[in-house]
Amino acid sequence: MRAVQVIGYHTKLQLTEVPEPQVTGPLDVIVRIGGAGVCRTDIHILEGQWAEKSGVALPYTIGHENAGWVHAVGDAVTNVTVGDKVILHPLITCGLCRACRSGDDVHCENSQFPGIDTNGGYAQYLRTTARSVVRIDDALEPSDVAALADAGLTAYHAAAKAARVTRPGDVCVIIGAGGLGHIGIQVMKAISGATVVVVDRNPAAVALATEIGADHGVVADGTHVEKVLELTGGKGAEAVVDFVGEGGATKEGTAMLRRAGSYFVVGYGENIDVPTIDVISTEINFVGNLVGSYNDLQELMVLAAQGKVTLHTTKYPLDEFQQAIDDLDAGLVRGRAILIP
Amino acid sequence: MRAVQVIGYHTKLQLTEVPEPQVTGPLDVIVRIGGAGVCRTDIHILEGQWAEKSGVALPYTIGHENAGWVHAVGDAVTNVTVGDKVILHPLITCGLCRACRSGDDVHCENSQFPGIDTNGGYAQYLRTTARSVVRIDDALEPSDVAALADAGLTAYHAAAKAARVTRPGDVCVIIGAGGLGHIGIQVMKAISGATVVVVDRNPAAVALATEIGADHGVVADGTHVEKVLELTGGKGAEAVVDFVGEGGATKEGTAMLRRAGSYFVVGYGENIDVPTIDVISTEINFVGNLVGSYNDLQELMVLAAQGKVTLHTTKYPLDEFQQAIDDLDAGLVRGRAILIP
Amino acid sequence: MRAVQVIGYHTKLQLTEVPEPQVTGPLDVIVRIGGAGVCRTDIHILEGQWAEKSGVALPYTIGHENAGWVHAVGDAVTNVTVGDKVILHPLITCGLCRACRSGDDVHCENSQFPGIDTNGGYAQYLRTTARSVVRIDDALEPSDVAALADAGLTAYHAAAKAARVTRPGDVCVIIGAGGLGHIGIQVMKAISGATVVVVDRNPAAVALATEIGADHGVVADGTHVEKVLELTGGKGAEAVVDFVGEGGATKEGTAMLRRAGSYFVVGYGENIDVPTIDVISTEINFVGNLVGSYNDLQELMVLAAQGKVTLHTTKYPLDEFQQAIDDLDAGLVRGRAILIP
Amino acid sequence: MRAVQVIGYHTKLQLTEVPEPQVTGPLDVIVRIGGAGVCRTDIHILEGQWAEKSGVALPYTIGHENAGWVHAVGDAVTNVTVGDKVILHPLITCGLCRACRSGDDVHCENSQFPGIDTNGGYAQYLRTTARSVVRIDDALEPSDVAALADAGLTAYHAAAKAARVTRPGDVCVIIGAGGLGHIGIQVMKAISGATVVVVDRNPAAVALATEIGADHGVVADGTHVEKVLELTGGKGAEAVVDFVGEGGATKEGTAMLRRAGSYFVVGYGENIDVPTIDVISTEINFVGNLVGSYNDLQELMVLAAQGKVTLHTTKYPLDEFQQAIDDLDAGLVRGRAILIP
Repeated sequence: MRAVQVIGYHTKLQLTEVPEPQVTGPLDVIVRIGGAGVCRTDIHILEGQWAEKSGVALPYTIGHENAGWVHAVGDAVTNVTVGDKVILHPLITCGLCRACRSGDDVHCENSQFPGIDTNGGYAQYLRTTARSVVRIDDALEPSDVAALADAGLTAYHAAAKAARVTRPGDVCVIIGAGGLGHIGIQVMKAISGATVVVVDRNPAAVALATEIGADHGVVADGTHVEKVLELTGGKGAEAVVDFVGEGGATKEGTAMLRRAGSYFVVGYGENIDVPTIDVISTEINFVGNLVGSYNDLQELMVLAAQGKVTLHTTKYPLDEFQQAIDDLDAGLVRGRAILIP
Repeated sequence: MRAVQVIGYHTKLQLTEVPEPQVTGPLDVIVRIGGAGVCRTDIHILEGQWAEKSGVALPYTIGHENAGWVHAVGDAVTNVTVGDKVILHPLITCGLCRACRSGDDVHCENSQFPGIDTNGGYAQYLRTTARSVVRIDDALEPSDVAALADAGLTAYHAAAKAARVTRPGDVCVIIGAGGLGHIGIQVMKAISGATVVVVDRNPAAVALATEIGADHGVVADGTHVEKVLELTGGKGAEAVVDFVGEGGATKEGTAMLRRAGSYFVVGYGENIDVPTIDVISTEINFVGNLVGSYNDLQELMVLAAQGKVTLHTTKYPLDEFQQAIDDLDAGLVRGRAILIP
Repeated sequence: MRAVQVIGYHTKLQLTEVPEPQVTGPLDVIVRIGGAGVCRTDIHILEGQWAEKSGVALPYTIGHENAGWVHAVGDAVTNVTVGDKVILHPLITCGLCRACRSGDDVHCENSQFPGIDTNGGYAQYLRTTARSVVRIDDALEPSDVAALADAGLTAYHAAAKAARVTRPGDVCVIIGAGGLGHIGIQVMKAISGATVVVVDRNPAAVALATEIGADHGVVADGTHVEKVLELTGGKGAEAVVDFVGEGGATKEGTAMLRRAGSYFVVGYGENIDVPTIDVISTEINFVGNLVGSYNDLQELMVLAAQGKVTLHTTKYPLDEFQQAIDDLDAGLVRGRAILIP
Repeated sequence: MRAVQVIGYHTKLQLTEVPEPQVTGPLDVIVRIGGAGVCRTDIHILEGQWAEKSGVALPYTIGHENAGWVHAVGDAVTNVTVGDKVILHPLITCGLCRACRSGDDVHCENSQFPGIDTNGGYAQYLRTTARSVVRIDDALEPSDVAALADAGLTAYHAAAKAARVTRPGDVCVIIGAGGLGHIGIQVMKAISGATVVVVDRNPAAVALATEIGADHGVVADGTHVEKVLELTGGKGAEAVVDFVGEGGATKEGTAMLRRAGSYFVVGYGENIDVPTIDVISTEINFVGNLVGSYNDLQELMVLAAQGKVTLHTTKYPLDEFQQAIDDLDAGLVRGRAILIP
């Protein structure tokens, strides 16, 4: 089959012919890829940023946001059958460790991460297991939802946590109205009664955010902390979900927080650097957020099927992978870039 | 009556004669002081560290850890009667704001803080309100429990949060085996099934901590992070309660944390300074902790009455206040210093 | 002032002239009534069903769903000022007992219930306290929201509990599409991502329920348990909120429940009568629901101000109270009947 | 190997020679039985009470409380190795359904129940899977803990829920001081700060219960409801855990409950039969309890290894199975009867 592989760092990806993956274990599922999201992480991989951390042996197939159709299954697979439309949870998890047994499968002690440390989805087929495939509604197309598999799932996971600590009249600030932020806004509006205030440096992004449901938009122009405080009667927001995590976002976002409020960290880049005296005197919380669990992905797919969460995508044939990556790098992709094998 | 007052900053406290407080509001409660804790914060007040923050007008009576007997009550007081033994919640709260209405009275929008911004308990009598008095068991003496009113209540509040996220087999590290740490250890053992590991620089404090119930003691000698990791199978602790918050404690404590673990900040001094990438990739949480609520104080008094939480105290007559403060400053007080009017 | 009073049981209410209530306590608030809801409970009171339970001395002024304008306040009132538009929490609570201190003020150990055991709102003025008045948005009118004070608040409270245990893809069945059911449906859609299935004997009520947001409507015609099971893939619903509680509703509703599901009891009349073997083998829960807390009422008023919860009302001048009660008894009131002084 | 099998209903069990179970699936684990608990359910099985429900084909090997040593493992087993001491979670679960993915594996949609619907542990060897084996501490012996696998796990699960809703000063009533009750008392004392009141008809059982940690014992002699109310200041208990569930226990237990309290149903036999008006006016909850999850069993094994939960056992060689059953039926077993192959 055709697959796009990392053949070296600081080198371009290469489209090549590789053997189709086969079912070898009883829980294995072979998925025919319908769409694979192109993510900024893919660019970081090529730059070698993940080389040591992942320890992956080159060459291997990249692509960690995948959806498609079940092509073949192992003997013990009971939750999907050949032909099912599925989206893939980004991790392959063991199901036996305490984290897996608690529903916190993203903290699995024995996980694999296709596209990062094993073969991913820039290809015609991918091997995962029954534990990672979520059936999607007939009305959804794999290429339309693929990017929800990782970026969308991360946004869902953080927004769902924020929803649990906010009630009607409470304010949830969402910092960053990019891809994750858009999902986060839609999720908050779909599952909570909180008032959503979006903050972004880009006025067009803020405008779009209010169109898709944010109650208030604030352009990050230096007056934004003050404006959020005004919107909250001077008291600050009960929750801040920070999809940026760099360029001063964490300091500004913390200043937007109400006493006993919670700061959900999603974006990364800079340090949280906050005096312990401030943490205790206002009794605020900083909550880390990784990608969501398998069950989170099921829930997100429900919202997608109900039309409550949508994602703009720009599609490219698999052999135009280089164009997709170049467009992403140049900021030319509207929504998320998806490769179609 | 006699009262010890702040008459200026960088000046010694002065014992003086002042009018007895009177009931003026319907919820007022006058308490005859049975014991007033001497706290490091009192020294900081004299150094002027709280002058601007509290805005208190001098002279005023210091002392924010108080217990005694109800001496007089306003018309609307229904929860205590004259003669009742009581401990005082450190704050006087309004009962009307959303925080008070949620049980989070420490975030009251209109609170007063006797001993900090209004007259406190280094005196024969103190005025508070019905909302701040907790009746204590007949078996307890005000002078024995006074120091639980603030320091103990803070430790209880943080430990109770840690107890809620730990289960049998989980590990809770307690950093700092001083006054608050001792209460924290006793509370954790009384209300949770977690394994308690105490970490302190002082070997004697560690030894004492294991005597009062800590399952493991680790001397902070440079190998302590490693030792905690060994005790947790290399995975780290589900919870860390940090009663130190300075001198590198937060960095070391964070390194002791397991994936998805929670760090409870109680002590303060330095900054939490942690890369957002670490916060999200391990999905850890930092949880601020202020003093406990009124209901927390009731619960702590139950544990005290049951003998599950005890506190060593060194008692001084009120007119030996200077000696008590000098002893505290010199590190000569065993347990907590208490002034007895 | 004019007031409608209970002068005897099994006797008609009487419009009479009584003295205006005065501020006597520091937290007292006198409210000029803008609207008072007419509730089936009022008819039960006249039938003497509450005589023993309430112990109220006749005559007294009836009416327990009240909203209006602040007319006078006691010295210690800080949360409202004269002229404020307010809705009244149905209970007057003490603020000092453990329940009040936990935010569970409906379990106050020293509460009064205007309209039930003390003078209520079928009158020009009513006395309550600062602890019971919730300011409402400028855009809302007291006569439009009065009926949310008790019936609406009960529905909000139960729906908010159901929202906390349901996630996208989960099903919440609402039994009873009457006044409370309508509020319940609107609340569920406003604050949760659950799928709402409404069940009612009246096809018109079911049709209206789906218009205001229910995802599915099922007419209770004998096949309704089966239909709910079909809608849930044969597994049953994660939550059932039962606003009926009689005529077999609890047995049918329990049969609609999924393993580990929760049954929220709101309506009453019959017994829950379920084999313990069924309770344990499916691990289901039965959750009682009383009226909501003060904070619940604040949240409901936010949803009302946002237009997410609306209530149809039929208004009557105060002196047409008998007509209102007769219409209610005859089933002729559309939405809720409101008396306007 | 030797196995004790059900060969017909209303017929005695038969010791017979059957083939040893073999690893056939990749997650299979063959356990050499070290101890198998003899449970009242085993007698019910022989009486045919489970015949229809389980649908098991006769003959088959009985015994659903098992512990021993890992004898052989399938290719995909990573959590145990041959020779490990293990206790067996009573269910074999799929790991793929939403319940399994949430940590609620007892609600697995595709589970098997060795000893009930497939071959159990009255034998030398038993086949289960990697998902059901919990390693136990070196200090524990399989024959000592086997009965914790089902009866003990059920008690742990219910007590852990009760612990989550009780705080110091709150009262948890435990109805029934038999095998499950004893575990429940020990668990409550180990993981919560609640006051435990035990109620049983048998004075000797009550006395033993207070010896193992119950704070108060009440003999169910007709005055017991009143006595519990006295112990709770007339208000009732925050939690009741009912291990009896018949003979009027649920009505009496409900009468012991405080407003907003929770009733944990574990024992079964009679119906819960309570007016909905009582459920809503006091806002009480009835909470079903099935056996605990895999993670619950891990936690219980931690408490067992720490000596916080112990169980008295009476051991019989496997070929004396009839004596064990006869003794159980005659009420002659002290603690739990255990068969040793």
